[in-house]
Amino acid sequence: MKTRSLGFKQIPGSICAPRGFKAAAVFCDIKRLGTGKGSEKGQKRDLALIVSDVPAAVAGMFTTNQVCAAPVKVSARNAARKFARAIVVNSGNANACTGKQGMADAETMTKVVANKLRTSANEILVCSTGRIGVPMPMANVKRGIVMASGRLARNRASASEVAEAIMTSDSRRKEIAVEFQLGGTRVRLGGICKGAGMIQPGMSRTGKRPAAGLHATMLGFLTTDAVVDPGFLKEALEKAVAQSFNRITVDGDISTNDTVLILANGMAGNPPAADREIFQHALDFVTLELAKMIVRDGEGVTRFITLHVRGARTAADAEAVARAVANSALVKTSWFGGDPNWGRILCAIGYSSATVNEAKVDVGYSPPGKTKITFAVRRGQPTRVGLQTLGAIVSQPEFDLHIFLNAGRHDCVLYTSDLTEEYVEFNKGNLSDPKSLGG
Amino acid sequence: MKTRSLGFKQIPGSICAPRGFKAAAVFCDIKRLGTGKGSEKGQKRDLALIVSDVPAAVAGMFTTNQVCAAPVKVSARNAARKFARAIVVNSGNANACTGKQGMADAETMTKVVANKLRTSANEILVCSTGRIGVPMPMANVKRGIVMASGRLARNRASASEVAEAIMTSDSRRKEIAVEFQLGGTRVRLGGICKGAGMIQPGMSRTGKRPAAGLHATMLGFLTTDAVVDPGFLKEALEKAVAQSFNRITVDGDISTNDTVLILANGMAGNPPAADREIFQHALDFVTLELAKMIVRDGEGVTRFITLHVRGARTAADAEAVARAVANSALVKTSWFGGDPNWGRILCAIGYSSATVNEAKVDVGYSPPGKTKITFAVRRGQPTRVGLQTLGAIVSQPEFDLHIFLNAGRHDCVLYTSDLTEEYVEFNKGNLSDPKSLGG
Repeated sequence: MKTRSLGFKQIPGSICAPRGFKAAAVFCDIKRLGTGKGSEKGQKRDLALIVSDVPAAVAGMFTTNQVCAAPVKVSARNAARKFARAIVVNSGNANACTGKQGMADAETMTKVVANKLRTSANEILVCSTGRIGVPMPMANVKRGIVMASGRLARNRASASEVAEAIMTSDSRRKEIAVEFQLGGTRVRLGGICKGAGMIQPGMSRTGKRPAAGLHATMLGFLTTDAVVDPGFLKEALEKAVAQSFNRITVDGDISTNDTVLILANGMAGNPPAADREIFQHALDFVTLELAKMIVRDGEGVTRFITLHVRGARTAADAEAVARAVANSALVKTSWFGGDPNWGRILCAIGYSSATVNEAKVDVGYSPPGKTKITFAVRRGQPTRVGLQTLGAIVSQPEFDLHIFLNAGRHDCVLYTSDLTEEYVEFNKGNLSDPKSLGG
Repeated sequence: MKTRSLGFKQIPGSICAPRGFKAAAVFCDIKRLGTGKGSEKGQKRDLALIVSDVPAAVAGMFTTNQVCAAPVKVSARNAARKFARAIVVNSGNANACTGKQGMADAETMTKVVANKLRTSANEILVCSTGRIGVPMPMANVKRGIVMASGRLARNRASASEVAEAIMTSDSRRKEIAVEFQLGGTRVRLGGICKGAGMIQPGMSRTGKRPAAGLHATMLGFLTTDAVVDPGFLKEALEKAVAQSFNRITVDGDISTNDTVLILANGMAGNPPAADREIFQHALDFVTLELAKMIVRDGEGVTRFITLHVRGARTAADAEAVARAVANSALVKTSWFGGDPNWGRILCAIGYSSATVNEAKVDVGYSPPGKTKITFAVRRGQPTRVGLQTLGAIVSQPEFDLHIFLNAGRHDCVLYTSDLTEEYVEFNKGNLSDPKSLGG
């Protein structure tokens, strides 16, 4: 197994696989569908807790959207304190565009959790996803937190229930865990995430914009029992997100709530600072696998495309070309049709903000992960490869697209999807459907 | 009629309404569908000529896409010579990504026309729209030019045939003409255009990128019998395009072939330099009406939205917010559903490159052209206006969206559309359909 050679192996479970983490998820009617208190049965869970037995080193990456939800602001502030105990998260309401009341509600969520855990509110992180501009139903939220705190368990089933609770338009849970050695000690790293639409995350440590910052609501929660100092944890998470969640796009929309959090509680007792590159490798693997799950489960998605841009003059140029192609409505719809429409791809390359020379551009396709590229375009002009040959690759559920700008030494990879009628149908909204204000 | 108060009136016809212009369009099988020479009957015309009786002042605006078709390069060069006699245009093949042969073919098209008109090839402008990366079928093209040059006529019907010949995915012809006085002399201005997908033109005089340059294939051809000096004509066209064709977006894709050309042959004999502001008004009106026709005829479009962004810190910020909202897949699909989903609008405002303060943003809707705005959002938070009230406006075929950033004094208007399942169905491509490589 390829992952073993990097020093880790995949194991069952997710956020409860590392030692010292408990989780619970409940239904508390965040959407106020009006179901009574006793009718939890058969409802999708909508509030969850992830709790470390001891204070854990914490790091977070947050949306760079300037219209940023209250829980993002609270979590960014608390994550900066370096240690945390728990994460509270709800689906059904994003607590975005909710003003001062929204901030007060997010703070209250941390206080209610802190009270149940007998700790300080600034050791609690809070995340929300769902409708924008609707006040949080705080009575239900408080009841949910109390219920969940009474059900905390350290098993695979409760982790899965949390993975379910954070889902909105997702069709399935997204979970992963790995095990590896740091300085001779066995440690574990687990994660869950959600996201299917409004997906082009562009997160930074502070929520401030990096050089290239972008967009969904995606939420990701990672736990590890490794001993990791908070400074390195922040760096490691930033690197991991840069090559995973910040490299996916479903529809090009950057959410108001994107957040990735990691808790490292040190309960494995490994020697500090040992084998950092192995930890980074494992974290890169876990975040990338989770990120790809989001694209594969994207709203209406029928194809998964790994887009390689190579030979750009600058890193920004490589990314600009990749995002122009991956977010072009015409390119995405042609992928839906299994159509190797390289004309639209060249067109998108040409209108990107990158400096490109048409006469140097090569475009080709390959089956996923294969090294042999079938070129549709060489030096800006079509090859003699027939449409049927190209179409045989592009009509598969997964393929790789390779763009060579032949202008420099900078590369970029993006993971993206097609644009389908089902996406439009799913998102067209409906005034009679309360989901229509979903964020 | 409002247009009369600006000093001009709308009249029937288009490019043959001004004195001294002849036009013709033929079917010459540019797509090589294989129909024989004699089978022109019942086929959509695909090649056209627009000819001025005398050398006319010329100005052009060209795509800023770096992957730029051969005819764009040839026309930009010839338009810089200030005077021209004719335009030759074909649909069915974009002559883009065709390398040196493409350049030679575009030059040959100008030579064949020049030969028939007994003038110089550098007085001929050439435009193409259609499939990308396919060599021009030059035998058919030459035959078409010869046929068309034998049928040139100065009537409304031949102008309409040209408007038909330039159509690709358009469902209808787009024509307009106006009449006005310059220094007491009656002059006329007419125009036609095409475009339905790959529509977000960002044209400049030279094809070089302006500060904010953007994207379809759209083609626009304007004729006037006014006496206008070439220097003023260039300025006037640039201003007119800036507030019309460069202010529309259907799908956010900038074409490789976007071109707008104007010929002013002076046959009206008005005093030079008289009433320039009236000429500008008329040109602004004609280009804006044509641009709006493109959006209304956009692929799969069911709604036409006039998007006003006001109070930005800079002009670039105003445009960035307008384009982020108008090109958001989630915003556009919600419009399709008639859903006043202001949460997605705020989200797009927040991830635009503009500097915005959520707590200052107002968002409202109005019926087209009405001054009373119904606000959904005030100072970043929802008003008490119900979804049904907002939905009653947004579910109409046309409405205005108003975004107030309250951060400065810069405004931007964009004309845009919804994103529908029909757009996806239309563009998803199909290997068995030769149109699938359409540009």
